[in-house]
Amino acid sequence: MPLDPTFAVPACHAEIHITAAGGPDVLQRIERPVPRCGASDVLIRVASAGVNRHDVNQRRRGPDTVHSPVPGLEVSGVVVRVGDDVTDVRIGDAVCALVNGGGYAEYALADHAQVLPVPAGLSLRDAAALPEALFTTAHNFFNVARLAPGESVLIHGGTSGVGSLAIQVLTARGHAVYATCGSDEKCAISRTLGAVDAFNYRTGAFADALKAARGGEGVDVILDMAGVVYGRQNVDALNRRGRIVHLSPGGGADLSFPLRELMRKEAVVTGSLLRPLPDIEKAAIAQWLRAQVWPLIGTRVKPIIAQRLPLAQASQAHEILEAGDVAGKILLDVAHAFD
Amino acid sequence: MPLDPTFAVPACHAEIHITAAGGPDVLQRIERPVPRCGASDVLIRVASAGVNRHDVNQRRRGPDTVHSPVPGLEVSGVVVRVGDDVTDVRIGDAVCALVNGGGYAEYALADHAQVLPVPAGLSLRDAAALPEALFTTAHNFFNVARLAPGESVLIHGGTSGVGSLAIQVLTARGHAVYATCGSDEKCAISRTLGAVDAFNYRTGAFADALKAARGGEGVDVILDMAGVVYGRQNVDALNRRGRIVHLSPGGGADLSFPLRELMRKEAVVTGSLLRPLPDIEKAAIAQWLRAQVWPLIGTRVKPIIAQRLPLAQASQAHEILEAGDVAGKILLDVAHAFD
Repeated sequence: MPLDPTFAVPACHAEIHITAAGGPDVLQRIERPVPRCGASDVLIRVASAGVNRHDVNQRRRGPDTVHSPVPGLEVSGVVVRVGDDVTDVRIGDAVCALVNGGGYAEYALADHAQVLPVPAGLSLRDAAALPEALFTTAHNFFNVARLAPGESVLIHGGTSGVGSLAIQVLTARGHAVYATCGSDEKCAISRTLGAVDAFNYRTGAFADALKAARGGEGVDVILDMAGVVYGRQNVDALNRRGRIVHLSPGGGADLSFPLRELMRKEAVVTGSLLRPLPDIEKAAIAQWLRAQVWPLIGTRVKPIIAQRLPLAQASQAHEILEAGDVAGKILLDVAHAFD
Repeated sequence: MPLDPTFAVPACHAEIHITAAGGPDVLQRIERPVPRCGASDVLIRVASAGVNRHDVNQRRRGPDTVHSPVPGLEVSGVVVRVGDDVTDVRIGDAVCALVNGGGYAEYALADHAQVLPVPAGLSLRDAAALPEALFTTAHNFFNVARLAPGESVLIHGGTSGVGSLAIQVLTARGHAVYATCGSDEKCAISRTLGAVDAFNYRTGAFADALKAARGGEGVDVILDMAGVVYGRQNVDALNRRGRIVHLSPGGGADLSFPLRELMRKEAVVTGSLLRPLPDIEKAAIAQWLRAQVWPLIGTRVKPIIAQRLPLAQASQAHEILEAGDVAGKILLDVAHAFD
């Protein structure tokens, strides 16, 4: 899909703004100048933007002085401008990228080092489902939890955007992966994705079910996007020297767990926030993904697209995500003439 | 102090038993057969036994089916028997050792691999103050927290048995060490031991005082023997990717801390229990101590002996430890003719 040589970036474009703290209706479509491309940036004509839980949390908190008022942490599209210092991405490249806000828009800026090619075997639009989930998977399992070869894993939210890709990536890398989900249907999907087993957290204690499935053993690493709800069960479900990595701050609440049991296992409770990570660390993750995960995409690893909506229906996308009955990623499609 | 060649191990000896769950008065002196030396054990004629918080906790819980009814996790003394497989320790050696209970006695068994020589420049009796504190320091800072060269440290309880030795060892290794204590006098002692600064936790928030002392920075590793009381302040006092290592289970209570702040820093909450550690890991710690710490003892590193009491006054030793106004280690001296 090379760019039409007569294509010219317009002066203005449509963005979705968080206009106040509140429900999905605070998201409003606004015309604004297309953002200026800094020396290390690329400007992407957006094909699709991924919708993440983080966007919902940002919307609930409302505008602030630190973050872009335009939500959206990942996009796919075609590069239409590159900054003066950029040599590794070219105009016309079909890419997906992690973006520091600003994804819900017709054009979005990305740091060149957080841009990856659309993998073979994946459509331009579907590639928008990759960056946030795969950067999150790579950083939390390998940098934060230091997942070692042969270690086992439990993922809370097996059919979430992160969970559904993490199950596939870690299974492909030879790890025994378990998942929890909120319904038997989602458990079935998790198993289809490669999970050895999946447990419905609404119908029993997952820690007991996990240990029963593993002959009394726990797992080495737990990825938790449920906030502060599983303190005790998480520690219970860990092996000695296991690590619990938290992705969701749970609305700023305190996390509690039984200290003695943590000590007895020399277990670790930790976590991370992807967005404030220094650019140099995001660049290192991108390099790792390109080498280790990109070759798997389209064959061993495929994103699940739960739903596609036009960019203008961002409010509805948030409603659907908050209703919680989604398996996979919700994408906002921009009506450019890519298809 | 070679053994008198006519010395013979008696059939029976005095032990202090935990006779029930309760206060210091449940500790009773009882005559029992001297324990039999297994193939990898050595039998030590005890000079002194260290008194630890762990002994107090065990006494409060009372006898169980897992642990020796005789408290005491460290002794010094002279080796009087060695097991059939022991080649690295000899009868007559002056040693100190980590023991798996049984330290409050005239004779105690130790695994040969957890025995270390009495360091040059230290008396036989004072050497009993070393094992528990130094195994704890080595394991928690280097195995659990993976303290790296140049990293900074905060130790809660700067004048405790562990704290007073850890300050000296880590200072000697080039780390910037800070401490908290329960009085201005103990803070002064901590500084004398090498702490860059020490903060009285009774007169203000140590996290604020620490960061003020470090120009806004926190520390990389916190050693916490205060149980569950400092969840929020500990996270506040850490640098990015800092680790909090817990030594005290705080009576089985839950630990709480602000999850989002932990995630923002990619900080780690962890801990360990020394006693249940596998023998092979204790042996590795002993080797590390012999190479890295033993050369410092007597010069850069000296144990503080808070008080010495005869073995028969173990109850009184517990009373003193529980009153909390102790700086350094309390030793129980056995009335053998060593001196």
